[in-house]
Amino acid sequence: MWSVTPDDLESIAIGAGILGTGGGGNPYLGQQHMARLLNQGYRATVISLDEIADDALVTEVSGMGAPTVGVEKLPRGDEPRWAVEALEQFIGRPIEALVCAEVGGVNSITPLVAGALTGKPVLDADGMGRAFPELQMSTHFFNGVPCTPAALVDEKGNRIVFAHTVDAFTLERFARDLCVAMGCIAELAMPVMTGRQVKAHSVRNTLSLAKRIGDAVRAARATKAPVVDAVLAVTGGVALFSGKLVDVQRQTRGGFARGQLVAEGSGADRGTWLHIAFQNENLVAWRGSRHTPEEVLASVPDLICVVESDSGEPITTEQLRYGLRVTVLAVPCSDKLRTPQALAVVGPAAFGYPDVPYVPLPKQPGQGID
Amino acid sequence: MWSVTPDDLESIAIGAGILGTGGGGNPYLGQQHMARLLNQGYRATVISLDEIADDALVTEVSGMGAPTVGVEKLPRGDEPRWAVEALEQFIGRPIEALVCAEVGGVNSITPLVAGALTGKPVLDADGMGRAFPELQMSTHFFNGVPCTPAALVDEKGNRIVFAHTVDAFTLERFARDLCVAMGCIAELAMPVMTGRQVKAHSVRNTLSLAKRIGDAVRAARATKAPVVDAVLAVTGGVALFSGKLVDVQRQTRGGFARGQLVAEGSGADRGTWLHIAFQNENLVAWRGSRHTPEEVLASVPDLICVVESDSGEPITTEQLRYGLRVTVLAVPCSDKLRTPQALAVVGPAAFGYPDVPYVPLPKQPGQGID
Repeated sequence: MWSVTPDDLESIAIGAGILGTGGGGNPYLGQQHMARLLNQGYRATVISLDEIADDALVTEVSGMGAPTVGVEKLPRGDEPRWAVEALEQFIGRPIEALVCAEVGGVNSITPLVAGALTGKPVLDADGMGRAFPELQMSTHFFNGVPCTPAALVDEKGNRIVFAHTVDAFTLERFARDLCVAMGCIAELAMPVMTGRQVKAHSVRNTLSLAKRIGDAVRAARATKAPVVDAVLAVTGGVALFSGKLVDVQRQTRGGFARGQLVAEGSGADRGTWLHIAFQNENLVAWRGSRHTPEEVLASVPDLICVVESDSGEPITTEQLRYGLRVTVLAVPCSDKLRTPQALAVVGPAAFGYPDVPYVPLPKQPGQGID
Repeated sequence: MWSVTPDDLESIAIGAGILGTGGGGNPYLGQQHMARLLNQGYRATVISLDEIADDALVTEVSGMGAPTVGVEKLPRGDEPRWAVEALEQFIGRPIEALVCAEVGGVNSITPLVAGALTGKPVLDADGMGRAFPELQMSTHFFNGVPCTPAALVDEKGNRIVFAHTVDAFTLERFARDLCVAMGCIAELAMPVMTGRQVKAHSVRNTLSLAKRIGDAVRAARATKAPVVDAVLAVTGGVALFSGKLVDVQRQTRGGFARGQLVAEGSGADRGTWLHIAFQNENLVAWRGSRHTPEEVLASVPDLICVVESDSGEPITTEQLRYGLRVTVLAVPCSDKLRTPQALAVVGPAAFGYPDVPYVPLPKQPGQGID
């Protein structure tokens, strides 16, 4: 059990930015919000999965929407608490602990905000071990946890409860339409799980992993050591490519930020180009010529992370712009995302790339993501 | 109190088709569904507003969607019961009686289906005294009854509860988006009202008015008397125009059937044309030349009803087609739709016709709609 400090938040925001692979919402805004709550005397407590009772009720708390909108339309601040309360009102029982739907981006911090405002502990775990754009893409749901009841709220005070949907894909479709109607940003609390279920299916220790990544980045910056190497050491990832962003195509459509980027290689990568397709999160990275992607270097569910080459600062989808000097990393995903039932939901084909085979990045046991 | 018979259903379907002013969904399908339930031994009981206790809980049950879709995508049949049960689950108390959201179209019969399946009585009243396309257009809501909680269900078993929305316009927008995602037809139970509230705000005796209109049509048909005159006698309406449908423009968009029709006059109306704009329901009728509407003859909230000239059969929006010989009637609406707060929601300007002044049709006290 640990109580989150402003210093922790700074590290978590960096680590979650990297684990967010471009999406999950801008963590800086969440960090500022949570830091203000700490300042006001609120506390956020993180506990490990082993500290929760098997029959305790747990829910995920997360923001839903397009990162491009999230940086312009700031939350009111109460939404994470409202979402949890709407769910509790529906089930008529208190929720005992919160868990991250995804550890990436602001969604690593949203449960801490909800935890601070409701006095509930937050589990050191999440349902993705990264960020994904759609809610069915979760170790909880493709391992059979029902995705409802689910509560969706907005900053105006609208509260909606999905009492039952036939599957998580349907919930994603319904909630996404409502999210767009709510202004492209909304907050979710879902589903109602037991301690037993999260112990079985959540990706473990990911909030503390985000913190360790951030700690390593900050230590490297302070000592002027190579920041990217520090990230690779903690995550077990590899550097795919270094260069300059030369093309960014991006549109906010159907509630997502969708697009692609092209980076022109520098140093050892001079004369080649890297292409990345994204839907909030980075999906597939190809090496190729200026206009043609050719060889797949990495794909979902493994993590494709774009960081600023000098600072190691993660670059989220909505921050991509011409001229940034970037290093692209690939980090092996959780083993929980590599099962056949997981790959059916989060493999390249599920994102519209049926011709991209998933070739798992090599992974050292005990290193990186659980 | 009366128990609905198959003969009543036949009359209600005709009367509700006329009161539906083109919308409310095709009543024939509801009649067939309800007749089958009666055949299976279910009973539907109608009670007057005076028979409900002031503190009894009441909810509206209705279908939402585009009539053009409703005639192709048939319901499963359990949806009205599921909607009521979802609402009861949310509030944790039983609903004691049901009421029509609108008396027009199939929505006159949907509460009878829900009543039969749940054993609850249906009030002889509704929230519009006709049909309207959007849910905020209700005597309940513009007189201050909160529009939530509201339950929305579909034929697949998806159940959604709007725990709170900031106003009825927001609920309409959210529910309409979900309705489109559900396949353009869904069932609503909303809100939770008291007997006192429905006594104060509902339009009275409208189910029995629908039955009386249908009885009159059927009696006239049987005796070969002029059917249109029989409808006018019961409703207190006037015949605006007789002719042949020559143009129908119709599209299903945003969850509504929208469009316009042009009828070419015959008999006394030869040499003139009638133009009607509709959004599920008929909104404004103009006399004019072939291509140009000129003089407003009637507008919302008064009822503009298109019936087949010979049979008096109401013609719903999705049945409009070239060549039909029609008589267009105008029927004075409920006084409850003529207040300033009502006209702000259901007057011509609310439907996008700010230049059409509402000129109330003359009304005889005690005749027609309450």
